[in-house]
Amino acid sequence: MDFAPSERAADLTARVAEFMAEEIAPVEPGYHRDLADLRRSGDPWQPLSVLEELKAKARARGLWNLFLPREHAGDYAVRFGTDGGEGLSNVDYAPLAELMGRSAIAPLVFNCNAPDTGNMEVLLRYGSPEQRREWLEPLLDGRIRSAFTMTEPDVASSDATNMEATAVVDGDEVVVNGRKWWSTGVGHPDCQVLVFMGLTDPEEDRHRRHSMVLVPRHAPGVKVERMLDTMGVHDEPLGHGEVSFTDVRVPVANIISGPGEAFAIAQGRLGPGRVHHCMRLIGLAELALELGCTRALERSAFGKPLANLGGNRERIAEARIAIDQARLLVLHAAWKLDVGGPLNALSEVSQIKVAVPAMAQKVIDMAMQLHGGGGLSSDFPLAGAWTAARALRLADGPDEVHRGVVARLELGKYGAAR
Amino acid sequence: MDFAPSERAADLTARVAEFMAEEIAPVEPGYHRDLADLRRSGDPWQPLSVLEELKAKARARGLWNLFLPREHAGDYAVRFGTDGGEGLSNVDYAPLAELMGRSAIAPLVFNCNAPDTGNMEVLLRYGSPEQRREWLEPLLDGRIRSAFTMTEPDVASSDATNMEATAVVDGDEVVVNGRKWWSTGVGHPDCQVLVFMGLTDPEEDRHRRHSMVLVPRHAPGVKVERMLDTMGVHDEPLGHGEVSFTDVRVPVANIISGPGEAFAIAQGRLGPGRVHHCMRLIGLAELALELGCTRALERSAFGKPLANLGGNRERIAEARIAIDQARLLVLHAAWKLDVGGPLNALSEVSQIKVAVPAMAQKVIDMAMQLHGGGGLSSDFPLAGAWTAARALRLADGPDEVHRGVVARLELGKYGAAR
Amino acid sequence: MDFAPSERAADLTARVAEFMAEEIAPVEPGYHRDLADLRRSGDPWQPLSVLEELKAKARARGLWNLFLPREHAGDYAVRFGTDGGEGLSNVDYAPLAELMGRSAIAPLVFNCNAPDTGNMEVLLRYGSPEQRREWLEPLLDGRIRSAFTMTEPDVASSDATNMEATAVVDGDEVVVNGRKWWSTGVGHPDCQVLVFMGLTDPEEDRHRRHSMVLVPRHAPGVKVERMLDTMGVHDEPLGHGEVSFTDVRVPVANIISGPGEAFAIAQGRLGPGRVHHCMRLIGLAELALELGCTRALERSAFGKPLANLGGNRERIAEARIAIDQARLLVLHAAWKLDVGGPLNALSEVSQIKVAVPAMAQKVIDMAMQLHGGGGLSSDFPLAGAWTAARALRLADGPDEVHRGVVARLELGKYGAAR
Amino acid sequence: MDFAPSERAADLTARVAEFMAEEIAPVEPGYHRDLADLRRSGDPWQPLSVLEELKAKARARGLWNLFLPREHAGDYAVRFGTDGGEGLSNVDYAPLAELMGRSAIAPLVFNCNAPDTGNMEVLLRYGSPEQRREWLEPLLDGRIRSAFTMTEPDVASSDATNMEATAVVDGDEVVVNGRKWWSTGVGHPDCQVLVFMGLTDPEEDRHRRHSMVLVPRHAPGVKVERMLDTMGVHDEPLGHGEVSFTDVRVPVANIISGPGEAFAIAQGRLGPGRVHHCMRLIGLAELALELGCTRALERSAFGKPLANLGGNRERIAEARIAIDQARLLVLHAAWKLDVGGPLNALSEVSQIKVAVPAMAQKVIDMAMQLHGGGGLSSDFPLAGAWTAARALRLADGPDEVHRGVVARLELGKYGAAR
Repeated sequence: MDFAPSERAADLTARVAEFMAEEIAPVEPGYHRDLADLRRSGDPWQPLSVLEELKAKARARGLWNLFLPREHAGDYAVRFGTDGGEGLSNVDYAPLAELMGRSAIAPLVFNCNAPDTGNMEVLLRYGSPEQRREWLEPLLDGRIRSAFTMTEPDVASSDATNMEATAVVDGDEVVVNGRKWWSTGVGHPDCQVLVFMGLTDPEEDRHRRHSMVLVPRHAPGVKVERMLDTMGVHDEPLGHGEVSFTDVRVPVANIISGPGEAFAIAQGRLGPGRVHHCMRLIGLAELALELGCTRALERSAFGKPLANLGGNRERIAEARIAIDQARLLVLHAAWKLDVGGPLNALSEVSQIKVAVPAMAQKVIDMAMQLHGGGGLSSDFPLAGAWTAARALRLADGPDEVHRGVVARLELGKYGAAR
Repeated sequence: MDFAPSERAADLTARVAEFMAEEIAPVEPGYHRDLADLRRSGDPWQPLSVLEELKAKARARGLWNLFLPREHAGDYAVRFGTDGGEGLSNVDYAPLAELMGRSAIAPLVFNCNAPDTGNMEVLLRYGSPEQRREWLEPLLDGRIRSAFTMTEPDVASSDATNMEATAVVDGDEVVVNGRKWWSTGVGHPDCQVLVFMGLTDPEEDRHRRHSMVLVPRHAPGVKVERMLDTMGVHDEPLGHGEVSFTDVRVPVANIISGPGEAFAIAQGRLGPGRVHHCMRLIGLAELALELGCTRALERSAFGKPLANLGGNRERIAEARIAIDQARLLVLHAAWKLDVGGPLNALSEVSQIKVAVPAMAQKVIDMAMQLHGGGGLSSDFPLAGAWTAARALRLADGPDEVHRGVVARLELGKYGAAR
Repeated sequence: MDFAPSERAADLTARVAEFMAEEIAPVEPGYHRDLADLRRSGDPWQPLSVLEELKAKARARGLWNLFLPREHAGDYAVRFGTDGGEGLSNVDYAPLAELMGRSAIAPLVFNCNAPDTGNMEVLLRYGSPEQRREWLEPLLDGRIRSAFTMTEPDVASSDATNMEATAVVDGDEVVVNGRKWWSTGVGHPDCQVLVFMGLTDPEEDRHRRHSMVLVPRHAPGVKVERMLDTMGVHDEPLGHGEVSFTDVRVPVANIISGPGEAFAIAQGRLGPGRVHHCMRLIGLAELALELGCTRALERSAFGKPLANLGGNRERIAEARIAIDQARLLVLHAAWKLDVGGPLNALSEVSQIKVAVPAMAQKVIDMAMQLHGGGGLSSDFPLAGAWTAARALRLADGPDEVHRGVVARLELGKYGAAR
Repeated sequence: MDFAPSERAADLTARVAEFMAEEIAPVEPGYHRDLADLRRSGDPWQPLSVLEELKAKARARGLWNLFLPREHAGDYAVRFGTDGGEGLSNVDYAPLAELMGRSAIAPLVFNCNAPDTGNMEVLLRYGSPEQRREWLEPLLDGRIRSAFTMTEPDVASSDATNMEATAVVDGDEVVVNGRKWWSTGVGHPDCQVLVFMGLTDPEEDRHRRHSMVLVPRHAPGVKVERMLDTMGVHDEPLGHGEVSFTDVRVPVANIISGPGEAFAIAQGRLGPGRVHHCMRLIGLAELALELGCTRALERSAFGKPLANLGGNRERIAEARIAIDQARLLVLHAAWKLDVGGPLNALSEVSQIKVAVPAMAQKVIDMAMQLHGGGGLSSDFPLAGAWTAARALRLADGPDEVHRGVVARLELGKYGAAR
C-alpha cells in the first residue's frame, strides 16, 4: 500500500497548478465580472474570447485532454496534444481534476469538462471509426462541444428504464422523438452533437431496450425549448437545456455500438465521469476551506478572530477530516476502476457519488457561514460552489439511487437477491 | 395550557388563507413568469402592476397591516385598515405570517413584509410624532417603502459594536458617513427612507455609542452602489443593496429616540421581526412538505411511487416532526414576547432564529430531492425557498451568534458571567 | 393559545419538586451505592427498604397515583390518595412526569412507574369490576406490581401481528403458550400479574386476532427464564425478563374486554404511556444539561473553563433548543390526547416517540463528553440516563415503525392508501 | 498510488483470519457465558484458562507480538516469536488490528492489546537496557501485564498539563504521589508494572515538567482504590482502575528516558496506539454491519424482510460508505507514520481519533436498531461494541481536543499562531 502519487501524476499536478496560478487565476475574476455584465445586458451565451486564448495556451503546454483514459487513448493523445502522448490512469488523473475543480473555467480551458469528456470516452470505447472521425476528433481538438440527453421532464428519470423518448429504427434511418431536460452543454454555440438515449425495442430485456444515438444539434426537429437554471444560475456558456426531438431522422450508422446497447455503454461511461465530478468537488471544498480559514483569521468579532469564536475551530477540523476522507474514497474508487474496470467498482463509484457532494455541500456551507453576508453573494466563489455541490446530489443519479446500489451489493454478499 | 388559537386568530387565519387561495394563487405563477421575462430583457426593479391591485383588494378586506402589535398599535389600526381596528398579539399574528410565508409576494400584498414591518414598529414604539407623521403613516398606507442599513461590508457585523459607519451630531444636524450592505428594500422605486445605524459617541458605554437615524433615500450623499445577489437571486423588486453614505446631512430631529439609543431600539425591534421571519419560513417548509408528498405519490420509479422507495417515508416523517417542533418553539417564543416583552424572551428569540432556518433548509432540501432535477429549477418554488432559508441563517445575526446568546443565558443560570 | 400551566399543575409541580429535593435527593446517592453493593455481593432484586419508606411519605402528602387520567379515574383518586381526589389531564400530569424522570427511583416512589401505570390504565378503561378489584386496587395501593408481556424473542415484534404466542379459549379457560422477552417489571418480588398478549383467533381480521389476558405471575407454567440486561444494566429491582408460558390455564374471565380486543386496548394504552416516557426522558435531558453546564463552569483546561473551549457553548445552546422543542412537542401531543383522545393524536404520539429519545440521547451524550471519563462511569447519572434514552428508541416500538406511522398519516392527507 | 496490501500483510491477514475462525470463534461465546457466570457469582477478575491456551496456540503459529514496529523491533521479533522475525510497518499491521478488533479477546490472545502494546513501544524506543530486560521482555513473553496511569479524577485531564500527580526526584529515588483513574489493565492479576506520569519540575517549560516512571504494581503506597465501570461494564479481566500513589519510592533508574521527558515520550507513543485503537473499532463496525445485514435479511415485519423496510437499505449503504472512508483515513495515517514518523502525522492521527469512534458508534447503533431489543442485550456483541466506541470518544483524548489539534495545524498553514 502506497499513498504517494506516481511521478507523472506529481509532475502534471505541479504543472497544472502552475498554469492555473499563472494563467487562469489572474483573469478569472475579470471573466466573472464580464459574464455578470453580459447577463445584465448582452448575451452571456456567447463565450468570452479569453477562453479560447487560455485553451490555446494550455494546449501549447501539453495540458490538454488529460482525461484521456490510459487504456483507450490510442494515438489520440499524441495527435491531440496530451503531454507524454498517452492517456492517464484514473488515479493519476484524479488530482488534476481536483485542481481544475477549483476554477469555474479551468475544465473548459484544459478541454476536460463534462459532458464532453464523457461523450469523448463513449466514442473512444464504443464509437465506429466514422463516428470517431466525425465527432471525436473535433471534440478532442476543442473545436466543437457536445451534450448528453438522457433525463426527461415527464418521468422519474432516476430509474432510467422509465425513459419515454424513442429511437426507432426505420430502414437505414433512426427516428428520434421525445423531450429531454438537464441536457448540459446545449447552450454553447459550438455544441454540434447530442448523445441521445431512447427506447428502441420495448420487447427486449429491460436493459437491452435502449439505444444511444448521435444527433446533430441542428438536425431538423431538434429544438432547445429553454435553458434551465439551477437555483437561479444558468451556468453560461454551457448551460442546461430542455430539448424536444420531433421526428428527427439520422442515419442508422449514428447509433453507437448498435441498437439496444445504451445501458451497456452508460455503465462504462459513468464510472470515470463520476470520479471526475467528485474530484472537482473536492477541489471546490478545499478552496472553500482555504477561504474559510483565511476569513476566520482576518475578521474579528467580540474582540477575537472568528477562528477563535465558538465552534469555528471544531468545524474547520471537521471540514479537514471530511475532505480527506472523501478524497481517499475517490482515489480508492479510481484505483479500483484502474485495476478491474467499471464492473469491479460499482459500489465504489456509487459510494463516492453519495459521499462527496454531501461533504462538499457541508464544507462550503461552513465557509459561507464564516463569510457572513458576503458568503451568499457573488463576491466569493462560495455560493456558486454550493449550488454546484447541491446539484450534484441529483445530477448523474440522486443520492437515494446510489445508496440503493451500494446496499444491493452489500446485501448481495449475504445472498440477498435485490 | 391551551394550544387552540384564539377566535380572532382562527377567523383571520381562515380569511388570509381564503384570500391567498382566491386572489394570490391564481396570479402568482404569472407574476413569476413576467418577472423572469423582465430579468431577461427589461427592468425587474419596476414592480409589476398586479401587486398594487392585490394590495388594494387585501386592504378592502381588512387584511392590511395585520402585523401591528396589539400594545403599540394605538389608533393606527383603525386609521390604516387593520381588521377589527386593533393590533394583534404576537401569538395571534404568527399563524398569519406562516400563511403569508408560503407565497413570495403575499407579505407585500398584506403590507406585512420585512424590513418595513420592523421599521414601522420602531417608529411606533420610539418615533416622535413628527417622525411618525412623516414616515410611519405613508408606510402604513403602503405608499412608500423603507430599508434598514446596519450590516457593513468591511467588518464582521455579527458583532454590532464593530460598526464603523458614523452618525455625528453637528449642531442641529447629524452627519452620516459609511458603507452598508445587505440593505434590504433599497431596490424598490418607492423606497423613501433608510433607517441608518452608526457610531455617534465612541466615548460612551459600548451599547450607548450608536444612534439610529432616518435618512431620506434621495438625500445628497446617499448612493446605492450596487444590488447584491444571494446565490444568484436578486429578490426584485425589493432587493439587497450596498449603499454608501458620504457626508449626508439630516436634521438632528431625524435621530430616533435620541443619540446613543440605537442598541436599545434594536433590541426591541428584533424580537417580533424574528418571529415573523421564522413563521414565514415555517410556511415555506410546510409548502415544501406538501409539494414533496404530492410528488412522492405522483411519480414512480422502479415500479413504485417514490413515497414507497428507500428512506423517503422516514424522511417525510422527520420533516413533519421537525416542522411541528419548530412551529411550537416559535409560538412559545411569541407568547413569551406577549406576556413579558423582549427582555423576557431573549433566549427564546435567539433559539428560534437558530432552529427554524436550519429546519426549513433541511425540509426544503428533502423536497427538492424528491423533485429530481425539477427541484433545482425555477419550475417549483423550492429552490427559491431553499435560498431564503439559507440566507436566514446569516441575516439578522448568524446562527453562531444566536447560539452564543442562548448559551450565555443558559450558563448564566449557574452563575457564569459571560 | 396559552403556554402557562394550570393552577393545579403549577401547585403539584412545586410540591413534587419540593418532595424530590427534600426526601429523595438526600437518600438517592446512598440508594445507588447500596444497590451497587448488592450487585457485587447480595441480591439486588430485593428492593431496598428505603423505597417503601419514601412511598409512604409521598402518599401521605397526596403525591400518589398522580398519573390517574382525569376522565377515567372515577373514585379511585379519592380512595387511593391522589391529591385533590381526582385524576389529571395529560397536559397537567406531563410536568410531573418530567420531574420524576430526573430520578431513577421517583416514579416508583410516587406509584407512577412503567409498566404499572399503563397496566392500571388498561384496567381502569377496559377491566371488568372483578378484574379491577383483584388487580387494579392493590396496584393503586402500591402493594403489588405488574408486567406487560408482548415482545417476543423469535420474531420482529415491531410488527405486532408477527406475534406467535397464543391465548386459546378452551371452554371457560384460556390456555396461554409462548415466549416473551423485555417484560419489564417481572424481576420485582411484588410482581403478581402479567398482562399477556397473544393470538386467539387466526381467522379473524388482522387487528382482531389477539387477546389480552391477566396471568398471575405464579400460575403453573409461567417461568422467568432469565433477566436481560440493557447494555450491561439490569435495572433492578424491576428488571426486564424473558418469560416462557407453557400451557398456562387461567379463567376466561381473565381476558380483558373479551377475546380479540388486544389491539384496540393497546392503542388506547400507549398514548399516555408514551407521553409519560417522553416527559421522563425530558427530565433526564434537563438534568444532563444542568450537570453539563455545572461541569463546564467548574473544570478548566488550557487555561479556561470548559464552557469557553471550542464548540461547548454552541453545543449547550443546541441542547437547550432541542430540549425546549421536544418538551413543547410532548405537551402538544398531551393536549391533543386530552381534547380528542388517542385517535386524535396518532401522529403526535408517534412523533414524540421518535423525537424525544433521540434528543435525550444527544443531549446526554454531550453532557457525558463534558464530564470526561467520569461521564462514562456510575459516578454520575449520565451513563445510566444514556442507556435509558437509547433503549427507548426501541422500547414501545422502534423509531422506524413510528416514523412509518407519521408518514402514513402525512401521505394520507394527499390520498395515499398506505 | 497503490491500495493493494503488501504480500506480507496479505499473508498475515489470511492467517490471523484463519486463526480467529478456527480457534477463537468456536470458544468465544462460551468464554462470554463463563465470564457472565463469574460476574454473578465468582471472581471475574481471574482470567479464564482458555485465554492462556489460545495464547500458546497463537504464539506457536507466529501470530504473536505482530504489533512490533518495524523500525524498533530489533531482535525482539526473533526472540519473542513474531512471524518472519521482524516487526511490521503500521500500514501492514493495520488490517491485522482490524481483524483482532472483531473479537473481545483476540487482542489478548495475540499479545497485541492496549495498553500493553503502547507500554512495550515506549520501552522499545525509550527504555534503558535494564528497563527493557526487567519489564519489556516479560511483557513480550506474555507473562506479565502493565497499565498506563495518566488521567486524574480531580482535573480536566484532556489538558495533560493540568496533571497534579507528582514524581519528585529525591537523591537516587523518585517519590510518586497522586491519584489516577481510568488506568486500564490494573485489574488483571498479572499486572506487574504501572507506567506513571507525573510532575517533576514545575519551573521547567510547560512540556518539559513531567516524567514517566515505571512503578511496580505492588510497590508500597500503590493502591487500587476501585475498579470503574464504563456504562455498567467492567471489562474484566483487564478493567479500568482508580489508583492512589502515596509516597511511593522507586529507584531513579525507573524514570524512562530521564526526568522531564514524559511529553516527548507520550507524543511518540500515541500515534501507533491510536491507529491500533481505530483499526480495532473498524473491525467492530464491520462486524456490526455484517450482523445488521444478516438480521435484516432473516427477520421480517409487515410482510417483508427488514432490509426492504423504510430507510434500512439507505442506512446500510451509509454504513458501508462510512466504514470504507474511515478505514482509508486510518490506513493513510498509518502510512504517514511509516514514511515520516509521528511528527509527520500529527493532524492525521488526531483526525482518525475523531472520525473513527464516531463512525463506529453510528454504524453499531444502526445494527443495534436492526436487532430490536436483542441489540441492547448481551445476546449480541453490539451493545458491548457500542460501549467501546463511545468510550473511545473520550479515551486517549476527547474528540474536542483532537479537533483542536487538527484545527491548529490547519489554521497554521495560513500563519495562525494557535
